[in-house]
Amino acid sequence: MKDFFQVVHSRASVRSFLPDALRDTEIDALLRAAMAAPSAVNMQPWEFVVVVEKNTREQLAAALPYAKMAAEAPAVFIVCGVPARACEKSADFAVLDASIACENLLLAATALGLGGVWTALFPDKSRIEDVRRILGIPKDVIPLACVPIGRPAGPVKPKDKYNPEYIHKERW
Amino acid sequence: MKDFFQVVHSRASVRSFLPDALRDTEIDALLRAAMAAPSAVNMQPWEFVVVVEKNTREQLAAALPYAKMAAEAPAVFIVCGVPARACEKSADFAVLDASIACENLLLAATALGLGGVWTALFPDKSRIEDVRRILGIPKDVIPLACVPIGRPAGPVKPKDKYNPEYIHKERW
Repeated sequence: MKDFFQVVHSRASVRSFLPDALRDTEIDALLRAAMAAPSAVNMQPWEFVVVVEKNTREQLAAALPYAKMAAEAPAVFIVCGVPARACEKSADFAVLDASIACENLLLAATALGLGGVWTALFPDKSRIEDVRRILGIPKDVIPLACVPIGRPAGPVKPKDKYNPEYIHKERW
Repeated sequence: MKDFFQVVHSRASVRSFLPDALRDTEIDALLRAAMAAPSAVNMQPWEFVVVVEKNTREQLAAALPYAKMAAEAPAVFIVCGVPARACEKSADFAVLDASIACENLLLAATALGLGGVWTALFPDKSRIEDVRRILGIPKDVIPLACVPIGRPAGPVKPKDKYNPEYIHKERW
């Protein structure tokens, strides 16, 4: 049992990993948490590519300047938004809803004692195209984030990001 | 103590509320969870307007067709993205990052025994303008979501949204 607030406040980006493979039960728990996210009009306009094969992870790492750790992480999750299935068939909603699912996935990784990092594909057109090509993702699907996940190789150090200046009472 | 996975899988949209006010400690815990979210290059391009006053909540409810429950919820959180402070000053990143913070806020509400619902402002231009006008939000800030929060008036019924068809192994 992992306390919710402890998970939220201990999550931090993890960029180096032990070589251990993820268990199937862990991959399943991550994806189930992701798909439990809310979405506009409950359209669930998300899909996921789970990459374990080293050769494919290396191709991703080679193509993506901020996802070099995809080569070493035991699993890489590509979180995609699907405009054709989104509220009003909107790419905006597809991307928002996939983002929410991606956050659930990252939090779930923390809860499992794993770690990961959101490396952005969207809105960078060339990264989106590269990932579509490497993984055979259709043109009308938006790969939003490349998320390497594994067991952290070292201590995970969350930042305290609380900032009272970002809170407005009653009006801006 | 609330188990992370139990929270994720028991979260559901809550649209009717008991009249009890939120405690200051609850509002604080919700905002701290929201601000613990990751953001592109850690820019934290989010701000929050917390509306408790009934008159303002009624104005929001009157202006927003899908947020009628703002009139009855004891508190309404307006989650905003701030492009000027986002990675590459990108509105896309501001909206994504604010979405992630908003999901943390909704999950934290569930963990506290509260409930809420994400009612979309972005990408609807007229709702965004209405909320800017009512709350005095600057033109260069994007109010993303209007989130009424309170104690659920009835049982909360989560949907099982797991769909194995949305999972691709190794490639699409």
